[in-house]
Amino acid sequence: MANSEYEYVKREFEFDRRLPASNWIVVRIDGCHFHRFSKIHAFEKPNDENALRLMNACATSMLEKFPDIVFAYGVSDEYSFVFREETEFYQRRESKILSLCVSYFTSLYGMKWKDFFPNKDLREPPYFDGRVVCYPNMKTIHDYLAWRQVDCHINNHYNTCFWMLVKSGKTEKEAQQTLKGTFSKDKNELLSQQFQVNYEDEPAMFRKGSSVYRDKVETKVKTDDYGNPIKRIRLAITVSNLDIIGPEFWEKHQYILQEGK
Amino acid sequence: MANSEYEYVKREFEFDRRLPASNWIVVRIDGCHFHRFSKIHAFEKPNDENALRLMNACATSMLEKFPDIVFAYGVSDEYSFVFREETEFYQRRESKILSLCVSYFTSLYGMKWKDFFPNKDLREPPYFDGRVVCYPNMKTIHDYLAWRQVDCHINNHYNTCFWMLVKSGKTEKEAQQTLKGTFSKDKNELLSQQFQVNYEDEPAMFRKGSSVYRDKVETKVKTDDYGNPIKRIRLAITVSNLDIIGPEFWEKHQYILQEGK
Amino acid sequence: MANSEYEYVKREFEFDRRLPASNWIVVRIDGCHFHRFSKIHAFEKPNDENALRLMNACATSMLEKFPDIVFAYGVSDEYSFVFREETEFYQRRESKILSLCVSYFTSLYGMKWKDFFPNKDLREPPYFDGRVVCYPNMKTIHDYLAWRQVDCHINNHYNTCFWMLVKSGKTEKEAQQTLKGTFSKDKNELLSQQFQVNYEDEPAMFRKGSSVYRDKVETKVKTDDYGNPIKRIRLAITVSNLDIIGPEFWEKHQYILQEGK
Amino acid sequence: MANSEYEYVKREFEFDRRLPASNWIVVRIDGCHFHRFSKIHAFEKPNDENALRLMNACATSMLEKFPDIVFAYGVSDEYSFVFREETEFYQRRESKILSLCVSYFTSLYGMKWKDFFPNKDLREPPYFDGRVVCYPNMKTIHDYLAWRQVDCHINNHYNTCFWMLVKSGKTEKEAQQTLKGTFSKDKNELLSQQFQVNYEDEPAMFRKGSSVYRDKVETKVKTDDYGNPIKRIRLAITVSNLDIIGPEFWEKHQYILQEGK
Repeated sequence: MANSEYEYVKREFEFDRRLPASNWIVVRIDGCHFHRFSKIHAFEKPNDENALRLMNACATSMLEKFPDIVFAYGVSDEYSFVFREETEFYQRRESKILSLCVSYFTSLYGMKWKDFFPNKDLREPPYFDGRVVCYPNMKTIHDYLAWRQVDCHINNHYNTCFWMLVKSGKTEKEAQQTLKGTFSKDKNELLSQQFQVNYEDEPAMFRKGSSVYRDKVETKVKTDDYGNPIKRIRLAITVSNLDIIGPEFWEKHQYILQEGK
Repeated sequence: MANSEYEYVKREFEFDRRLPASNWIVVRIDGCHFHRFSKIHAFEKPNDENALRLMNACATSMLEKFPDIVFAYGVSDEYSFVFREETEFYQRRESKILSLCVSYFTSLYGMKWKDFFPNKDLREPPYFDGRVVCYPNMKTIHDYLAWRQVDCHINNHYNTCFWMLVKSGKTEKEAQQTLKGTFSKDKNELLSQQFQVNYEDEPAMFRKGSSVYRDKVETKVKTDDYGNPIKRIRLAITVSNLDIIGPEFWEKHQYILQEGK
Repeated sequence: MANSEYEYVKREFEFDRRLPASNWIVVRIDGCHFHRFSKIHAFEKPNDENALRLMNACATSMLEKFPDIVFAYGVSDEYSFVFREETEFYQRRESKILSLCVSYFTSLYGMKWKDFFPNKDLREPPYFDGRVVCYPNMKTIHDYLAWRQVDCHINNHYNTCFWMLVKSGKTEKEAQQTLKGTFSKDKNELLSQQFQVNYEDEPAMFRKGSSVYRDKVETKVKTDDYGNPIKRIRLAITVSNLDIIGPEFWEKHQYILQEGK
Repeated sequence: MANSEYEYVKREFEFDRRLPASNWIVVRIDGCHFHRFSKIHAFEKPNDENALRLMNACATSMLEKFPDIVFAYGVSDEYSFVFREETEFYQRRESKILSLCVSYFTSLYGMKWKDFFPNKDLREPPYFDGRVVCYPNMKTIHDYLAWRQVDCHINNHYNTCFWMLVKSGKTEKEAQQTLKGTFSKDKNELLSQQFQVNYEDEPAMFRKGSSVYRDKVETKVKTDDYGNPIKRIRLAITVSNLDIIGPEFWEKHQYILQEGK
């Protein structure tokens, strides 16, 4: 039973699309039906700290597993992974990269669930969709990340107000009505006047999302003969909640997007 | 902080590729580094019945979740899912379909693990890659499935011999050497003469792989006034290990690929 | 001066997209800025018979040059070329097929111009854009051609009325106003009552567009010993102006889309 | 006769692929069967000056017609057109850009033929194929152009020797044999010793190919009251045969690839 008579189905119909060289490759994954998923698992609103920490832990494991991911940025049930410009990961084949990333992340999410929700069983399979996008230069990859962080701010600002209103007794419809057409300034006033909340005091993880990258960290590697610590700069995968829209972060971490150059 | 200045990164760089209409869409997923994964988890060789049943259970849940999957065929750590020709699932967007399927399958695999390996903990995250292929007509989709089943046979025939030899004391290298250049007939003789094994008596799940589909099943739906059962034909998701290369299976199950016509 | 240091620009950035097998390949070309081109060259309105015959002559030469084109359909400054389902023309590479067809057609148009417009010089370069579309089965390729012929009818019906009105003294704006919201029946009435024209008597080339294909033609190949002609069926490239929406044409010419089966 | 029932053939099967933003778009066209075409039209070997000038004239007209083409480079029967990085020409739709360019170039070639070959009729339609490639940054677009010019050198060096040998009485096979395995140095020696030709004295158009771009040219725009010429810098489309591999050309013409920045 030779297979040759059927192998044309592979040869003539399967195509491996390769992503163009010299482009940053972004894989963005996004929770599927997480509105429902977060209800079933009673996530806190507007932000469930444990759920976010779980996402961050999965992203950290992604960077440990795939060295060509140089940066990741996450907010809510979404995470973007940036592969270095010249990566040859799976010869830049789009389907491989997309499917691997989304599958490995999903698997991590399931396995780490108990670490963050020790008292809750997974009642439905969490799953994610994903897409791959190429950015040809520093400006566009910066702007991509800025786009996600601006989105994080806009959504979180709104949601913070919305859930304050709901928790204070309004219906969801009334809360929506109250916020309709408000500007950033109006939302800040509402928070401070009605709820004595300064938005800037909200946790940075909620306001800024989370960035995962290899940070230069001074580590004690051994002790010299006199008992003095000998330190070295090592790269350590780090999660931070900093602003990545302005130039400061990128000026301080130029090596992140310049690895291998 | 308006997002509009960054939104060009979506508009100008993200493209939604849609798959052409009137084509069967196949998503084939495949275990990543499952050689290693199966060693770490001590899978039986050449076939671990529990591991295969776990794959089948996940595939069954895929058909429950996604009604547009009309057929699935699995062998080893691989599964192919066939969406009906005219599906409008996520408007036939390739990235959505690929990522969703591979993610949901991965999630199921993790969640169902304990049902099939109650005494083994998952020690590493199982993950899968995937690809999407379009087939334009009945002949090519049949040939695609035949291709996978022929592959199943060729691999299983070889592996059955290989592991018999190894379990009988040969090194892996010696076993490989013994089998080099052998034809189907030679392998059958080796099995029967050296190991008193008739290959055709091996479990069908090992030899034929597993097909998952909605079968017409007569079910008792209620009892009439005289206590006689009233039966109806219902569609029930079924796993079978039949030949899908020849025409018989498809003649008996014409409705599978003709749904909605 | 070895080229190897630069050859990466080909290897890493050039991709040959192949069209999926078992699909009819359609190349549709369309005149660029032919509104202007037809004005400059004083084409008759609404149809310039010589311009259409020139298009048909080019299409005929296309079928002579490329045997894998089995059918062509043209209307106005547009022509569709249908390659047979299993063609291996340039290994089904999309860019090759598209660029070759549009370039060869353009070249023919320039070279044959004088045959159809002996007294007019080409004052500007005629040029065309094009696209490639795949159709997976008989139904969709039929429907594609029907779509083009319905479009031909709708446009020609309108244009016939429009130019009758303009030639009778109305401004273009008034003509447009008169036709706004009219149905097919209204247009026929307008033509018969105001201009004593029966639309069905208009030339078939205007109403139906032109089909080019290899027709079975009985040809005298030699004479027998008694002076009687010996005839054979030969395939001869033919231009006709028939209905290709209904089944009659295709029933009589089944071999056109079944070559090689 | 409404068209709606057939319009699905467009909606479900036609896809407009857009090229990613912030990439230089290169359209490279290449003569089809020009070996034959040049024989039929008795082109001089290894270089026909008129044929090259015709190609350059067509390229010049391309830059006149399409302002978003910022640079073109041609050699033999091949021409590359570089669109500026941010061009929105036809919304960056690949099929439009490819087909338009190759068609317009073909049309020009036919129309300008008589200007360069007044005594030769076109005996067969000249036609070209083409492809589109995207380059994401300055380095890769420079390297692309260098790749083509190195190719020009390698081919012309070989062909110069080959045709000298053939014209001196060798058969084509013998000439081929003589050149097999020779390095650049060997070819220079062969030319100088056997034919008293210094390769560097060959026309630059043959050795370097042709570049077409908008050059800054000082032009007399009017005369002042005292009869002195008033000059302005104007951009004028220019053909040159310079080295574009090294940095000099690009340093002197930085504005070419930086238009609009």
